[in-house]
Amino acid sequence: MAALALPFPGFLVLLLFGLFSLMLSCCIPISHALSMRQPPRVPRFPYSAKQRGGVGGGDGGAEGIYLGVRGIKYDIQYYTQTLDHFDFRNESTFQQRYLIDARHWNGADKRGPIFLYCGNEGDIEWFAANSGFLWDIAPDFGALILFPEHRYYGESMPYGSGKAAYKDANSLASLTSEQALADFATLVIDLKKNLSAEASPVVLFGGSYGGMLAAWFRIKYPHIAIGAVAASAPILQFEDIVPTDTFYRIVSSDFKRESTSCFNYIRESWDAIDNIAAQNGGLHNLSTKFHMCRDLQGAWELEDWLSSAYSYLAMVDYPFASDFLMPLPAYPIREVCQAIDGLPDGSHVLSRIFAGASVYYNYTGNVDCFQPDDSGNIDLGTSGWNWQACTEMVMPMSSDPDNSMFQPFSWDLKSYEQFCMENYGVKPRPYWITSEYGGKNIKAVLKNSASNIVFSNGLLDPWSGGGVLEDISSSIVALVVPEGAHHLDLRAATESDPNWLVQQRAMEIRYISKWLAEVYRDKKRTTKVSKVSNSWGFLIVMTVAILALIVIIKVDKYLVFGRVPRLYAPLQSAQ
Amino acid sequence: MAALALPFPGFLVLLLFGLFSLMLSCCIPISHALSMRQPPRVPRFPYSAKQRGGVGGGDGGAEGIYLGVRGIKYDIQYYTQTLDHFDFRNESTFQQRYLIDARHWNGADKRGPIFLYCGNEGDIEWFAANSGFLWDIAPDFGALILFPEHRYYGESMPYGSGKAAYKDANSLASLTSEQALADFATLVIDLKKNLSAEASPVVLFGGSYGGMLAAWFRIKYPHIAIGAVAASAPILQFEDIVPTDTFYRIVSSDFKRESTSCFNYIRESWDAIDNIAAQNGGLHNLSTKFHMCRDLQGAWELEDWLSSAYSYLAMVDYPFASDFLMPLPAYPIREVCQAIDGLPDGSHVLSRIFAGASVYYNYTGNVDCFQPDDSGNIDLGTSGWNWQACTEMVMPMSSDPDNSMFQPFSWDLKSYEQFCMENYGVKPRPYWITSEYGGKNIKAVLKNSASNIVFSNGLLDPWSGGGVLEDISSSIVALVVPEGAHHLDLRAATESDPNWLVQQRAMEIRYISKWLAEVYRDKKRTTKVSKVSNSWGFLIVMTVAILALIVIIKVDKYLVFGRVPRLYAPLQSAQ
Repeated sequence: MAALALPFPGFLVLLLFGLFSLMLSCCIPISHALSMRQPPRVPRFPYSAKQRGGVGGGDGGAEGIYLGVRGIKYDIQYYTQTLDHFDFRNESTFQQRYLIDARHWNGADKRGPIFLYCGNEGDIEWFAANSGFLWDIAPDFGALILFPEHRYYGESMPYGSGKAAYKDANSLASLTSEQALADFATLVIDLKKNLSAEASPVVLFGGSYGGMLAAWFRIKYPHIAIGAVAASAPILQFEDIVPTDTFYRIVSSDFKRESTSCFNYIRESWDAIDNIAAQNGGLHNLSTKFHMCRDLQGAWELEDWLSSAYSYLAMVDYPFASDFLMPLPAYPIREVCQAIDGLPDGSHVLSRIFAGASVYYNYTGNVDCFQPDDSGNIDLGTSGWNWQACTEMVMPMSSDPDNSMFQPFSWDLKSYEQFCMENYGVKPRPYWITSEYGGKNIKAVLKNSASNIVFSNGLLDPWSGGGVLEDISSSIVALVVPEGAHHLDLRAATESDPNWLVQQRAMEIRYISKWLAEVYRDKKRTTKVSKVSNSWGFLIVMTVAILALIVIIKVDKYLVFGRVPRLYAPLQSAQ
Repeated sequence: MAALALPFPGFLVLLLFGLFSLMLSCCIPISHALSMRQPPRVPRFPYSAKQRGGVGGGDGGAEGIYLGVRGIKYDIQYYTQTLDHFDFRNESTFQQRYLIDARHWNGADKRGPIFLYCGNEGDIEWFAANSGFLWDIAPDFGALILFPEHRYYGESMPYGSGKAAYKDANSLASLTSEQALADFATLVIDLKKNLSAEASPVVLFGGSYGGMLAAWFRIKYPHIAIGAVAASAPILQFEDIVPTDTFYRIVSSDFKRESTSCFNYIRESWDAIDNIAAQNGGLHNLSTKFHMCRDLQGAWELEDWLSSAYSYLAMVDYPFASDFLMPLPAYPIREVCQAIDGLPDGSHVLSRIFAGASVYYNYTGNVDCFQPDDSGNIDLGTSGWNWQACTEMVMPMSSDPDNSMFQPFSWDLKSYEQFCMENYGVKPRPYWITSEYGGKNIKAVLKNSASNIVFSNGLLDPWSGGGVLEDISSSIVALVVPEGAHHLDLRAATESDPNWLVQQRAMEIRYISKWLAEVYRDKKRTTKVSKVSNSWGFLIVMTVAILALIVIIKVDKYLVFGRVPRLYAPLQSAQ
């Protein structure tokens, strides 16, 4: 398992790949390729193209904008947010955008719940568009839906603009997860105050980095939210909690399970690329062979382009056709491997690789030529995740030849630090996340000191290796689906959902119901006692209450697990 | 209960009294008196005089310093601490002092526990000298004792010196409770690493503000400490959780329970002082009557001097003679009231008041004249608590004539803000502490999302009103002693300790034993299973283990509650 320290041209790249690929967890292509002579590249935000026109400028008072899919509808509002929650001399604020949908809310009087999605590293509207689960279930819970945007992403830019916010280390200083959690806390407290909804319980949701935030928020701010659904949240992908080769091992095994020969072809391809690139005119030949729109600058560029595709494919290896990142068929890795394996015997390995890559990059068949930097190279100024990765979100990554089809490389903190210092003028703190949020020995730690968290993971997702895959207690549970990929459960239900996905969502609904039932039960008891304790009818009411309690206890299981919305089929047991 | 908005000369003062008097919880006299024309005064650190000479400059490698009382002995060490845990561009560090005593430690191999006292707002050696409880019990637990100093206090000054650290808002910016908790976290993680003691469980202790830190640390960092003894920790003294008049109501009731006439004399005295002060030469006459070393600058000065004495008396209303703040007899309030009531009928009310004040300020009889600013006026540069109170530690205070012997005043955030802006250039954030740490609805919130905290309070202590006085769950418990004052339980045991104090400490020991027993049981199980699961003897070992488990369950109560050190008598039940 020891990571190897083999130098190879793209080693720093792959290191950065690990670094950046969390973004991809939210559909942001990753920086992948980089020779030792090449400056590191950083990801861009492809989903900006997916945004619907004209939805970004609402003033909050307007009618909700209907996105036209699955009833995802909301108002856009802005909250004057404290820029630095931990520095009291700084009174600066910024406008934090949030989406809100109260159409189905039971209201403050009935203590209707608030479903709060913890915005991740991107435009909040994109996350809303891909989190239809909340809209699917809100009507049954009578819930208000709230999507606060993460600071420094989308429109929630301090200092007035993205350019000013991303100017330098000084302007980026307050882009941290701690500040983001404090944003969510203060925003929801104030919102509840304004709605006179202090008694409304808050349930958290989040996928990927947003799922990490949801879990951490529940652990750190139990007074604000009663529970969290943390989907595909790799909260253990830090320090030495999981082996550094976990991510690439899982991507590789996703390919191997479809086809060993496919796995082997990919593994062989890197040397083939390097060999051709080393020849006279080799780069030009490679560029032609892979239908690049321009000549490659180095072998690393092609290797990065391919590695990106494989890793993304593992994340979106969904059982149905999707266009989450790219238009793709169902089980896309199977399709890719069929393309690789399907060429006649004696075909060149790179012909196979090109056939496979075309499934990912050109499934529609409409692409004439490829941009080698399709998944890299963006203005540093908008790459918030890079800043986060260069400060606290240090996720060690490596590729081990024993179990990886990728080029081998080891985790190298020194190079990582060097990159961060050169590009942002900051030194990463690789031990901070585990100090601040924990993660080590998580089962023993959380079993008595936290509750009400659902960790959902699909084992095909390479991020699942850093996720919580075992129950911690009766209320901190792992919902693991072997066939699942990256936080599929948060997407809206469709008719083609496989049964395990329907069941996974049903379980999440049951846990949310249980958390809410506990809150409502507790509140009712408190209110009753305080209202009647001084009245002359005290004895009568107490007798009735005791009888009612007996009835409640008798039907307890029904109350807790019986409230599954119509959309989902009931299961046999809670776990 | 509504606080009155009566203007009176010292109203701002008393507001500040509330603000500052938490310090007194750690034996720091409070700023009390201030006319509307007088700039606010801030407290000084009287215990600096109590420090033993030559103990402040150790290099950590030297032989432990024996303080000569009750075996309190330690080495002094320094840790290179991150100045700003929440701002990654800032790489500054400072030397954080900590005291360590490993004489009784069972060592890393035996996973000997670490008893960590959360240093409060002052020199850590003073807290060690007054926390003999840890040294009393460490030998029985085989515990290492660790007293990290709170940043910006004692010797743990950023920027090289107290003067530089307290220069202005910029230098003070990182004096916050969040930074202090992160200091404790990183220090103990690193220390454990250096000692190869990662498996040693950490138990937290703290009194007053230190108790608040201990409770918050357990809630926010459950992965670092397994439990907390939070003594006299007013974590509910924020926002609107408890009525603003709580503190002065309790001080007043402490006097009333000794003598209603005493209470009434004090209540009448303020008008008497104001009336005399308003006369020609009145201030001089008052100064003479109260044996002041110089003429009073206003009635407020005398009123402040007296109010300070009453509030301190309530905090140290111990059942035995002490010199915690001043040399005082047992039950000092009783003595004060006997002095006030004891004068012949027809005595002037201020003669009575002077007799009472003399018990506090001159119990030894050695004082020739009094300094009216005995409990105020200090260089702003060293008043760390003022900065904290002007940023996040906003504890609303008022005096309600219905239940208070003090001059009436209402909570006035505007004036509070004005003081903070004028003196520190910061605006307080009165809602931050409840947002960050919670406190509202604490029972419902913590019962399932935290564990292992003992909140101890003495009901004579005016800070107990902001404390947790009811059990929250089976593992978050309130130890309330009606006759107790301010965190008496943390002091070393003495032969004159009343039975309730002995029992209170015994309960704390039982809970600590229980927390540790749970950790040790869990670890043993994990280790056993992982070692044998692959061996051929698996079945045999499992059989033995199951039999052992049955035995353990049978003797569970003995294991958990039977481990009470010899020093303390066992009780009937744990609750």
